[in-house]
Amino acid sequence: MSVAQLGPIARAESRKQVVSRMLELFREAAALRSEFVVFPELALTTFFPRWYITDESELDAFYEAEMPNSDVMPLFEAARELSIRFCLGYGEIASTDAGYQRFNTSILVNQKGEICGKYRKVHLPGHYEHEPERPFQHLEKRYFEVGDLGFPVFDVGTARIGMYICNDRRWPELWRSLGLQGAEIICGGYNTPTHNPVVPQHDHLASFHHLLSMQAGAYQNGAWAAAAAKAGIEEGCSLLAHSCIVAPTGEIVALSSTVEDELITATCDLDLCRDLRDHIFNFAAHRQPQHYGRITAR
Amino acid sequence: MSVAQLGPIARAESRKQVVSRMLELFREAAALRSEFVVFPELALTTFFPRWYITDESELDAFYEAEMPNSDVMPLFEAARELSIRFCLGYGEIASTDAGYQRFNTSILVNQKGEICGKYRKVHLPGHYEHEPERPFQHLEKRYFEVGDLGFPVFDVGTARIGMYICNDRRWPELWRSLGLQGAEIICGGYNTPTHNPVVPQHDHLASFHHLLSMQAGAYQNGAWAAAAAKAGIEEGCSLLAHSCIVAPTGEIVALSSTVEDELITATCDLDLCRDLRDHIFNFAAHRQPQHYGRITAR
Repeated sequence: MSVAQLGPIARAESRKQVVSRMLELFREAAALRSEFVVFPELALTTFFPRWYITDESELDAFYEAEMPNSDVMPLFEAARELSIRFCLGYGEIASTDAGYQRFNTSILVNQKGEICGKYRKVHLPGHYEHEPERPFQHLEKRYFEVGDLGFPVFDVGTARIGMYICNDRRWPELWRSLGLQGAEIICGGYNTPTHNPVVPQHDHLASFHHLLSMQAGAYQNGAWAAAAAKAGIEEGCSLLAHSCIVAPTGEIVALSSTVEDELITATCDLDLCRDLRDHIFNFAAHRQPQHYGRITAR
Repeated sequence: MSVAQLGPIARAESRKQVVSRMLELFREAAALRSEFVVFPELALTTFFPRWYITDESELDAFYEAEMPNSDVMPLFEAARELSIRFCLGYGEIASTDAGYQRFNTSILVNQKGEICGKYRKVHLPGHYEHEPERPFQHLEKRYFEVGDLGFPVFDVGTARIGMYICNDRRWPELWRSLGLQGAEIICGGYNTPTHNPVVPQHDHLASFHHLLSMQAGAYQNGAWAAAAAKAGIEEGCSLLAHSCIVAPTGEIVALSSTVEDELITATCDLDLCRDLRDHIFNFAAHRQPQHYGRITAR
């Protein structure tokens, strides 16, 4: 399995340009005989929730109304040609029962270049209203609806795969919901500012909190976990790197060491999941759901 | 806050002897002006679930039918005299609606020497049947009922305190259930063998898994966390040490460095909990319980 970290994407950078960067990492993964590549959250554009955008068409330009579309088609073609599946985050404009909606979305694409899974981010961080006193905004609560697909797990034949997106990885509820469905790989991407204007006293802990969440989630559910950063100084904002692959034991087995485009790869033996799930985290033997009612209470 | 790690307790050691060791640590805590001391799980006896015991009266000798009783009364008196509250784990024989039952129990005692909180372990590890091929048993599923008190949080005036016991600390469901009730201190003790006969390939990770669980639980719920080991070679079995105090940021701020009786202490500013709970783990703002149904499903 590989994680394709991306360095900063400028606001002026086109999707075609970004996709060509992604294809380079994709080919690198193929040369290593990797079977699965995880790309970041909102991987096709700059992280636009940092700006307060009032013009609807200006905002819509950061979303995809169709997937695949001509800009990203080369990725789907490469999946088929190189026989690699991938996970990709992007802003989605969807026509749902509730009308026209925007989601922070991640899809799973199989080795035939077909979309075989979709997840929409549930745990949206940040704020809804413009807060001009901040050096930059984090308007995910304004620009996205809460995901309406739950926490699905997809059986792709060789593995059961679940997805998270960015802030989701800090919430044990997501990990457990996927773990209970037998997810063997839990993957996703993130755009995590290294500076939080509201709690700046924790800035030096950004990487620790990211890795702690990934390691605990992997261990407590006996799953392989992968995290793909958009990293580096993007439009003046510093984004966390430390893309990683974590074993079901919670051990970090691969870690990025740059804040640029970078591929990291590990051999993932899915049988290792059983060492955890058959014993210390044997859910059927040890969980006591009759005591967990507060977790689902509103 | 202090954590009173205990070294091994021999099977032949009397409760009076153990309590005198505990009192020494208690006085050490008082000298440091500590207000709260956390003792280990099953702190009054050796960790008896390592043996298959068929004689009921022999087994019952490891439990307390009354609390406090004359053996532990000195601890309750010291709490009053030194004005320290404490948390204590012990085997409990209880007369319940279901009859005569055995629990793995922890109590909270206030500065007047009164029991002001009780928790009974929910996540019992190990096995029910005798497995003679093991070098030692782990018969908690045989010797204890699953706790019937849920995950209570007790407001002791200066803090809201919740408890876990040993294996509970690996389960995010417990941490979240306490966090949702506003627990500011989550404390407990453990008897964790460093060798797991069923998954020996993870033995070298015992301390890592312990600390990972404590750190993730503290961080993801914005609570101070404390863990008191029974440590060292006890009746031929090696027990994990690394008693710790963890800040709401997930940082380990105190860690034991022996496998013997040892007190560790840290100043715990409860206001630090708010840095987490008002922002990244603001449950009301970010949690989406409508998607968590699998967690409570049977």
